Amino acid sequence: MTGLAIDPDFCAALFAELLGFSQHAPGVTRAAYGAGEERAHALMRATGLALGLTAETDAAGNLFLTMAGRDPTLAPWMVGSHVDTVPHGGNFDGAAGVIGGLAAVEALRRAGLVPARPVTVAVFRAEESVWFPASYVGSRAAFGLLPPEVLDLPRADTGRSLRDHMADLGLRPEAVARGERLLDPARIHGFVEMHIEQGPALEAAGSPVGFVTAISGSFRYRKAACFGRYGHSGAVARSARSDAVFALADLITGLDALWGTLEAEGCPATITLGEVATDPVQHAFAKIPGEVRFCLDVRSTEPVVLDRVEAALAERVAAIEAARGVRFVLGERTGSTPARMSAALVEALSGHARRLGMPFRTMASGAGHDTATLAGQGVPSTMIFIRNQNGSHNPDEAMRIEDLCAAATLVAHLVAEA
Amino acid sequence: MTGLAIDPDFCAALFAELLGFSQHAPGVTRAAYGAGEERAHALMRATGLALGLTAETDAAGNLFLTMAGRDPTLAPWMVGSHVDTVPHGGNFDGAAGVIGGLAAVEALRRAGLVPARPVTVAVFRAEESVWFPASYVGSRAAFGLLPPEVLDLPRADTGRSLRDHMADLGLRPEAVARGERLLDPARIHGFVEMHIEQGPALEAAGSPVGFVTAISGSFRYRKAACFGRYGHSGAVARSARSDAVFALADLITGLDALWGTLEAEGCPATITLGEVATDPVQHAFAKIPGEVRFCLDVRSTEPVVLDRVEAALAERVAAIEAARGVRFVLGERTGSTPARMSAALVEALSGHARRLGMPFRTMASGAGHDTATLAGQGVPSTMIFIRNQNGSHNPDEAMRIEDLCAAATLVAHLVAEA
Repeated sequence: MTGLAIDPDFCAALFAELLGFSQHAPGVTRAAYGAGEERAHALMRATGLALGLTAETDAAGNLFLTMAGRDPTLAPWMVGSHVDTVPHGGNFDGAAGVIGGLAAVEALRRAGLVPARPVTVAVFRAEESVWFPASYVGSRAAFGLLPPEVLDLPRADTGRSLRDHMADLGLRPEAVARGERLLDPARIHGFVEMHIEQGPALEAAGSPVGFVTAISGSFRYRKAACFGRYGHSGAVARSARSDAVFALADLITGLDALWGTLEAEGCPATITLGEVATDPVQHAFAKIPGEVRFCLDVRSTEPVVLDRVEAALAERVAAIEAARGVRFVLGERTGSTPARMSAALVEALSGHARRLGMPFRTMASGAGHDTATLAGQGVPSTMIFIRNQNGSHNPDEAMRIEDLCAAATLVAHLVAEA
Repeated sequence: MTGLAIDPDFCAALFAELLGFSQHAPGVTRAAYGAGEERAHALMRATGLALGLTAETDAAGNLFLTMAGRDPTLAPWMVGSHVDTVPHGGNFDGAAGVIGGLAAVEALRRAGLVPARPVTVAVFRAEESVWFPASYVGSRAAFGLLPPEVLDLPRADTGRSLRDHMADLGLRPEAVARGERLLDPARIHGFVEMHIEQGPALEAAGSPVGFVTAISGSFRYRKAACFGRYGHSGAVARSARSDAVFALADLITGLDALWGTLEAEGCPATITLGEVATDPVQHAFAKIPGEVRFCLDVRSTEPVVLDRVEAALAERVAAIEAARGVRFVLGERTGSTPARMSAALVEALSGHARRLGMPFRTMASGAGHDTATLAGQGVPSTMIFIRNQNGSHNPDEAMRIEDLCAAATLVAHLVAEA
């Protein structure tokens, strides 16, 4: 299977087209079920059709572009990812997996290779949960698994429901609500999602790719708050205060100390408060803050670690409430379950990498991905992480095209083999 | 001097009129050099004229309402405060001192008593530094002491300069800039500011009034920030993060620990971060926060305590920067010097309170007040704190009219005596 060369210009041209309609300084924005995601789907569809693929769209607007195989009775391989981004994010998170999948198919066609199995490039909707506060909206809907109440959730920027946004695009939210599905997990041979790493590990290791052995689960409080009592900043003694900001600082340093302990014990976890704010209407320079809002995101590949952090959170909250006369209202809890990847797929990819002389690592994914949905449905699944610079979910997100080509080469070899 | 009875209805009617034009749910707003303060000045002026007082306004718009004394060669007593409020504050902070002063004059007139010295009720401008980031704007201008660059400061809500706001009201900022002054500190016999306590001490002690022995000074950073590095919340290990929010939490808990030590040693101080916020444009639920803005207000009646907190702040900032790979930018520092009150005035008020059988305490003021300006100019000065409920600088701020009447009774006796 020499001659399976991924075309970097094919990839670069697609990234440039995406960037052209989704710049939103600083960075890139493609809102889930918004104009940016919609144009990205249209671009991927047109690209797939030009490659001779067949296109199918499900009730939720997920797009499936399929290259026929030699044996139509065999379950297809599936590769893919998403094309939405966080607000002011980068151009690569998500899109790399779709463009990489199309590039792998393009290389197979150019080499005149028709795999035994069909190869489907999946373009899932709404993976970035910053838009609708729910994980894996598109991929869950593809399997008929999206709880109907998720359709009522408002998009963070517009306030309009997921249902209305779907309807705006001519999709069928009512079919999503009754669990109509295009994908049957028993009819997918295996799933591979290429995705930028979003962290610094591959860059530090000098490996263009990493194979993912597990995806973190999480628990999350998106609209948590601590309430104290406003007062004059100079006129209330330390012991008489109920300072919401000091209370939150106590919570953060407590969680950080626990995280340090977990790290020392080798327990994987991340703890993040991405948004913190006193009340812009009532706060003031000379007021003790009576309220602070925050969100909390805790992730781990190990369910027991999630349980341990959650227990410590409850304990810490109660202790701070008692000590400082404040009240925490954590609000609605969402979460996801850690997912194990297919050891057989990781081994198959490792074998191809070794034969190609390509350095690689195996690693866990701290971030959640649509792959977790497929793994949860019993589809043998893994991810190929692509070395990237400057993290992700930010305007400086970067990736070398040759590293994506390395990942797509592995995918092309994998699907060509069986 | 029996018969010197303060009229509670006179006071209540003035508070009701103030409230009528300054409600701004939740609470009360009278912006410095804004419509609310302007109407309040007009109300006080009209009330003073109706009592037969003469009215003078200086270049900065400070208002002085004077009751003639028996001997026009004697330096006048001065009482007063301010009528601006913080945004969404209460109706009593500031206004109580002006209304109390007018009520004392009204009681003297009603009793047919003409004191030896003139009595001036001062209504200072712009005491709440939340509007223009400078302390005691009005009272400093009254003594020709306002640095001209303060006139360039923008008001927090409008962005327009103090100079322009003064000009809007027909005042004379150019005269303020060249230090024109109406008040000569050598021509003020003594100054007393009645003001709600803004803290819970008098309520707890069951005393309607407290006499102030010192006013805190401060150092302040109104636009401080901590910069880290944005990243995916699930994909970056603890040691590889530069989390601005965790760094700020370290700073807060460090300052809180120092504050606890100071308290244990009997050193008076307050430490407040009234406003804290991640960047609403770039922050997200699934991002490590790369930036958090905050303000810091540290107060003490003891200069050495201010120095100690400031040294600890610098040390702590440097340590956190090194440990977490973040950068603090504290921005412009402002500050004020602690002020000693006149022991003779406190003793005179204490004597009147004892004779009237009125419980009182002596106490320090953690909050800054215009009285600090007068004390700084060598005018024998003190404050009468009025018992109040629910603190201040908040919509729930409260005060009993009879407690204000108690304070005004003391003022009336003081100025009637000599």
